[in-house]
Amino acid sequence: MSGPGRRPAPPLVTLTTDFGLEGHHAGVLKGVILALCPRARIVDLTHRIPPGDVELAAWTLLWALPSFPPGATHLVVVDPGVGTRRRALAADGGGHRFTGPDNGVLALALARTGAAAVALPTPGPGEASATFHGRDVFAPAAARLALGVPLDRLGTPARRWARLAVENPRRAGPGAAAGRVVAVDRWGNLVTDLTVADLSRWGIGPEVEVRVGHRRVAGLRRTYADAGPGEPVALVNSSGHLEIAVNSGRADAALGAGRGSAVRVRHRPRGPGRAKP
Amino acid sequence: MSGPGRRPAPPLVTLTTDFGLEGHHAGVLKGVILALCPRARIVDLTHRIPPGDVELAAWTLLWALPSFPPGATHLVVVDPGVGTRRRALAADGGGHRFTGPDNGVLALALARTGAAAVALPTPGPGEASATFHGRDVFAPAAARLALGVPLDRLGTPARRWARLAVENPRRAGPGAAAGRVVAVDRWGNLVTDLTVADLSRWGIGPEVEVRVGHRRVAGLRRTYADAGPGEPVALVNSSGHLEIAVNSGRADAALGAGRGSAVRVRHRPRGPGRAKP
Amino acid sequence: MSGPGRRPAPPLVTLTTDFGLEGHHAGVLKGVILALCPRARIVDLTHRIPPGDVELAAWTLLWALPSFPPGATHLVVVDPGVGTRRRALAADGGGHRFTGPDNGVLALALARTGAAAVALPTPGPGEASATFHGRDVFAPAAARLALGVPLDRLGTPARRWARLAVENPRRAGPGAAAGRVVAVDRWGNLVTDLTVADLSRWGIGPEVEVRVGHRRVAGLRRTYADAGPGEPVALVNSSGHLEIAVNSGRADAALGAGRGSAVRVRHRPRGPGRAKP
Repeated sequence: MSGPGRRPAPPLVTLTTDFGLEGHHAGVLKGVILALCPRARIVDLTHRIPPGDVELAAWTLLWALPSFPPGATHLVVVDPGVGTRRRALAADGGGHRFTGPDNGVLALALARTGAAAVALPTPGPGEASATFHGRDVFAPAAARLALGVPLDRLGTPARRWARLAVENPRRAGPGAAAGRVVAVDRWGNLVTDLTVADLSRWGIGPEVEVRVGHRRVAGLRRTYADAGPGEPVALVNSSGHLEIAVNSGRADAALGAGRGSAVRVRHRPRGPGRAKP
Repeated sequence: MSGPGRRPAPPLVTLTTDFGLEGHHAGVLKGVILALCPRARIVDLTHRIPPGDVELAAWTLLWALPSFPPGATHLVVVDPGVGTRRRALAADGGGHRFTGPDNGVLALALARTGAAAVALPTPGPGEASATFHGRDVFAPAAARLALGVPLDRLGTPARRWARLAVENPRRAGPGAAAGRVVAVDRWGNLVTDLTVADLSRWGIGPEVEVRVGHRRVAGLRRTYADAGPGEPVALVNSSGHLEIAVNSGRADAALGAGRGSAVRVRHRPRGPGRAKP
Repeated sequence: MSGPGRRPAPPLVTLTTDFGLEGHHAGVLKGVILALCPRARIVDLTHRIPPGDVELAAWTLLWALPSFPPGATHLVVVDPGVGTRRRALAADGGGHRFTGPDNGVLALALARTGAAAVALPTPGPGEASATFHGRDVFAPAAARLALGVPLDRLGTPARRWARLAVENPRRAGPGAAAGRVVAVDRWGNLVTDLTVADLSRWGIGPEVEVRVGHRRVAGLRRTYADAGPGEPVALVNSSGHLEIAVNSGRADAALGAGRGSAVRVRHRPRGPGRAKP
């Protein structure tokens, strides 16, 4: 369906970094990958992770993953410890391949996919710069993963790897849950670490009251337009996460909340009236 | 000329959205398209349309269109009404294919190309998220258009579609025209909705006086350097639109004008001297 | 290794411009290239060169060059003189092909590669817009270079071309060198025009003291983490240039230095203690 002769689909590589778009750094990753794997299709997830923000990179990859076809390779380079003894990882499993520093940036994706990981060999002096392992270590590893090189030829088995130094969302008594805002998107929507699967497992919802910032917000609604203009609404976003939005406005500004803000969710019995904020 | 065996050119898909470049959203569109159409070449027009700015997205697509080869597919997702009953469109004609919400975002391109349109089926509950139709509706439609699926297999004929809620440029008496600034580019140039074809049809030019903001500007000149440094100049830009620029400066700041500013153009008989601002 | 039947690698084209990412301009370059050379892989180095910043574009290209495979074509359009009589160049040599305006933007890459250059024919009236030669002149030239069209069919030999109007780094007495900051990267690191090859040729290092802004900085260290948190460090960056960084901080802010700041380097004999800032 995708071309004459049923040739196999070209390899697909995604990039997630904190390099920004001002310099040559993101482009250079692509040069290295295409030099080794000339038919690769390279997709930028983002190069605008805030410098060193390992956690946001981990979430970004997790949320993108389900939209990519089996066999895709995902490179993540947010690497404040570049040049130190932190390990470099490659991983394969659940239909996905990964490479990035062993600092938590791959932690959410590895937990989700159950992928097996290896530690890449430490480059010797003269084999790599001390400051740009994206170019010298991870892009070559991504190209080799994309070419189908098996994991055991890339490194030595890694049984453990860095987790994120954050608290997980949790049940907070009967019919209640506690989490936090882990991302604010371009529209000012507050994305939390609480998923609809968490809430459902804990018997919370579908009617809930959410406390975030200085407001109580009724949910779960279906879409932004289920609140009046300027009114806040809690919904399940396209990644299955609890999200707080303001119809035609910015929830971060309107609710005085942002990255890291505590979020409390409380079950509300279905009643004749709708919860009011 | 483009490869051995005269294989057909790979499908080409352009993307125009207000998703920004910070999150996973733009990358996810590409994952979905490449999963369905692995050989597609995907070109970002921009993901930095200001949130919800349907009109600017419509102009951006229109201005890019002539540079793409026949058969290209253009996806535009600026979709403040996502999850409501607004329709989703696919269109084909004039050598181009389109998909996007029925909110005016495709209006200028459809008018220019005379393309025929269909309404995509409304996704049932569970078939699509309520907040990310870019991923769940438009990217799959773009992939199918790129694969050559005919329009009548994508949806039901749409005889009408949303227009932009803006006033068109108009003749304003003999030898005069009225329009407005519809875009300010990175260099501060003021791009108007008046085209050289409009002016010519109304017998205006090639010598004109343009009023915009608090200044009168002489034109039509050929290029920025036809004014002295810091001086304003009116010219026909690379898309055939009347544009007001300041040589080595920013016209928006220098003239106190911006998006939406009224623009008046008046014919000047060709004389021995050049008009002075 | 890169696909069935050992088909040749697809042509590779890089783009470096000051177009920004808000409008249609960068995408349009890709449309033009893909219309002429449908199998090209196009890589953005950056479109965020500050408007008209010819020198930074020249450095960006130079630093990216070694990561691209032989045969790549590099388009650079930072072109404040568009529409004037400045020449347009194409070049080929050292395994690379280039096209861009003759204003210094290619000067560093041409000096490094020893490429031969031709002047592209001046477009006649009606053959090109006066304001968008990226689309009308350079993108078509890049596509033809990528297709393998030989240089002598693209234009007439150019024996000279514009250099950058900047002072080169220089020896400043025995064991000393003088240069300047030529780029500040996303992390606030100060990249200088002094290379480790310069310093070595002048008998400076590996222990040095660097003066920049209001501080003296010890070096050369290997990586950012070789200084304490918040402390400045001088190192050789991934492009072989002397760079001043602050571990877990921004050197530009901490040292009061930026683009154009003078940098002095002085040799220090290797001693029992490390230099202290």
